[in-house]
Amino acid sequence: MKRPTIADIARRAGVSKGAVSYALNGQPGVSEATRQRVLTIAEEIGWNPNSAARALSGAAANAIGLALRRPARVLGLEPFYMELISGVEAELATASYGLMLQVVADSEAEIGVYRRWWGERRVDGVLICDLRLDDPRVKALTELELPAVVIGGPDGVDGLANTWNDDGAALAETVEYLAALGHRRLGRVAGLSDLRHTRVRAEAFDQACRRLALTLAVTESTDYSGEQGAQATRRLLSGPDRPTALIYDNDVMAIAGLSVAQEMGLAVPGDVSIVAFDDSPLCRLVHPPLTALTRDIPAHGARAARQLLDVISGAQPPMSQQMTTARLTPRGSTAKPAPTITLR
Amino acid sequence: MKRPTIADIARRAGVSKGAVSYALNGQPGVSEATRQRVLTIAEEIGWNPNSAARALSGAAANAIGLALRRPARVLGLEPFYMELISGVEAELATASYGLMLQVVADSEAEIGVYRRWWGERRVDGVLICDLRLDDPRVKALTELELPAVVIGGPDGVDGLANTWNDDGAALAETVEYLAALGHRRLGRVAGLSDLRHTRVRAEAFDQACRRLALTLAVTESTDYSGEQGAQATRRLLSGPDRPTALIYDNDVMAIAGLSVAQEMGLAVPGDVSIVAFDDSPLCRLVHPPLTALTRDIPAHGARAARQLLDVISGAQPPMSQQMTTARLTPRGSTAKPAPTITLR
Repeated sequence: MKRPTIADIARRAGVSKGAVSYALNGQPGVSEATRQRVLTIAEEIGWNPNSAARALSGAAANAIGLALRRPARVLGLEPFYMELISGVEAELATASYGLMLQVVADSEAEIGVYRRWWGERRVDGVLICDLRLDDPRVKALTELELPAVVIGGPDGVDGLANTWNDDGAALAETVEYLAALGHRRLGRVAGLSDLRHTRVRAEAFDQACRRLALTLAVTESTDYSGEQGAQATRRLLSGPDRPTALIYDNDVMAIAGLSVAQEMGLAVPGDVSIVAFDDSPLCRLVHPPLTALTRDIPAHGARAARQLLDVISGAQPPMSQQMTTARLTPRGSTAKPAPTITLR
Repeated sequence: MKRPTIADIARRAGVSKGAVSYALNGQPGVSEATRQRVLTIAEEIGWNPNSAARALSGAAANAIGLALRRPARVLGLEPFYMELISGVEAELATASYGLMLQVVADSEAEIGVYRRWWGERRVDGVLICDLRLDDPRVKALTELELPAVVIGGPDGVDGLANTWNDDGAALAETVEYLAALGHRRLGRVAGLSDLRHTRVRAEAFDQACRRLALTLAVTESTDYSGEQGAQATRRLLSGPDRPTALIYDNDVMAIAGLSVAQEMGLAVPGDVSIVAFDDSPLCRLVHPPLTALTRDIPAHGARAARQLLDVISGAQPPMSQQMTTARLTPRGSTAKPAPTITLR
């Protein structure tokens, strides 16, 4: 499954490399039957005749690839991706590398993009985001022998280079902070449940709540969209024993949650405290400004790009690099819970 | 300034194309002095030896380029760009074209990127955004003979293909709507003042306010960031004769403005109405949801990409295509102004 070469086509077709080259370039010297067989094999193994000349040249593509698998409506709202891209590009610029970007619908399409990029020599390596549980991309990239760096891990990368954040520690710190303020009933609005970092955050949340003997620790799953974040907030705040603090897996959902609280006549932070994971400028645009878990996303992108350039050049970088853990930035959306008033 | 070819180097060096090829490929057959002269000329005219083989092959790059000139902190927050990219990619996917993305600091850097992309045959054409007054990119792209489509216009494109929106009509419709509700004092929070579409919107705003004989029509300029949108809103709402309705050039600033109104104890829409240009899901996440000028940005991206693919293939598309004008979507952030109370 590695990048197909003229030799691979020759071996499968049972002809010489020269004959394959004639066939691919439309030159005389091979029979029409052989030409057809070569073209069929070339297509099967992901060789694109249009880019044959480029791949034949053996030149580096001087570009890396990034495929993003989120619906456009979510991508457009997530400051995370553009911040990541800006960091990646800052690093690539120092090496005169380009960035190929592709939005994909699912893992299968994403692996297809990698196979095509590599087969056509459009990229020298790729960055992969949003690592999933049992992620099929890890095996596919290993088989393709396409240089890759995972933005995530360190578990589940199966030998691929990676840069990661300790999301579990950040979640635990947040729970401890809210507990120290006096909150006993916490709600969590989580992102896509099959993402590995969602799992890490979920386990850290549950463990911290148990350790601190909190009376309520409830999680609602979403697709990271503001719409689902709003729905999850309505469910969490509509029960009789509602949480007094909510932790959101991104800032877009936290802003949607703030609006839902206002719509339901609940004061933030008087009736409910709100914490956002990821601290884009959006968190400081709303009123009250949101307490958030701050991390340097452009720096993460730059570090991953540097690591990928090192992998590509054979410089053997450290295979697993840990970024600084997100730190809690308290703002106006968190406070002590209101004292419980019991009517007698 | 068009894409440099082997022939250009040969002509300048006063040697044959074959000799240039030998020199670039490090093959024997030319003197060391000639080799150095060829390499120097190649560098001067933007020929990159690393990609010589690729360019020599004459193969299409099967990719288009998009350079974005906004600071990362603004890009991350602007749903516009990712929505545009998602539409561009949907169209490119049908043609198996890739997208090269680059964030640039200024026009000069952007033109440098185009020259490099074209010289190295990394792209077959480019899309350009955010057309400026006396935009140097238009002349540079024409001289490079790099296929291009401007997302903007129709003025100032100087013969380049373009797809455009009638922002002036959208602004005029908004002013008429607010005037019909009874507003007489309008404020406008404008984007970057050297963008051509900002100028178009400004003229439409001023003309419509004059035509309707409104008593106040004041504009504050910003860089499109939420931060500057908030500052502009504070200035507009702090005077004695404050506007009763505000029109924002993007939704991020409108959301910042909504928060400023809340922070200043002003009700939206009771004390001040708010209208956002561009209607991303952000506008429906806040409370009250924002009245916005809605347009189909992914469709605009797809149309521009299709037009560029046609320019590249020589299919002679219509040179100037008008997209559907943004339509006003009234939501909870606009209402009649409060009656004026005069204390006697």
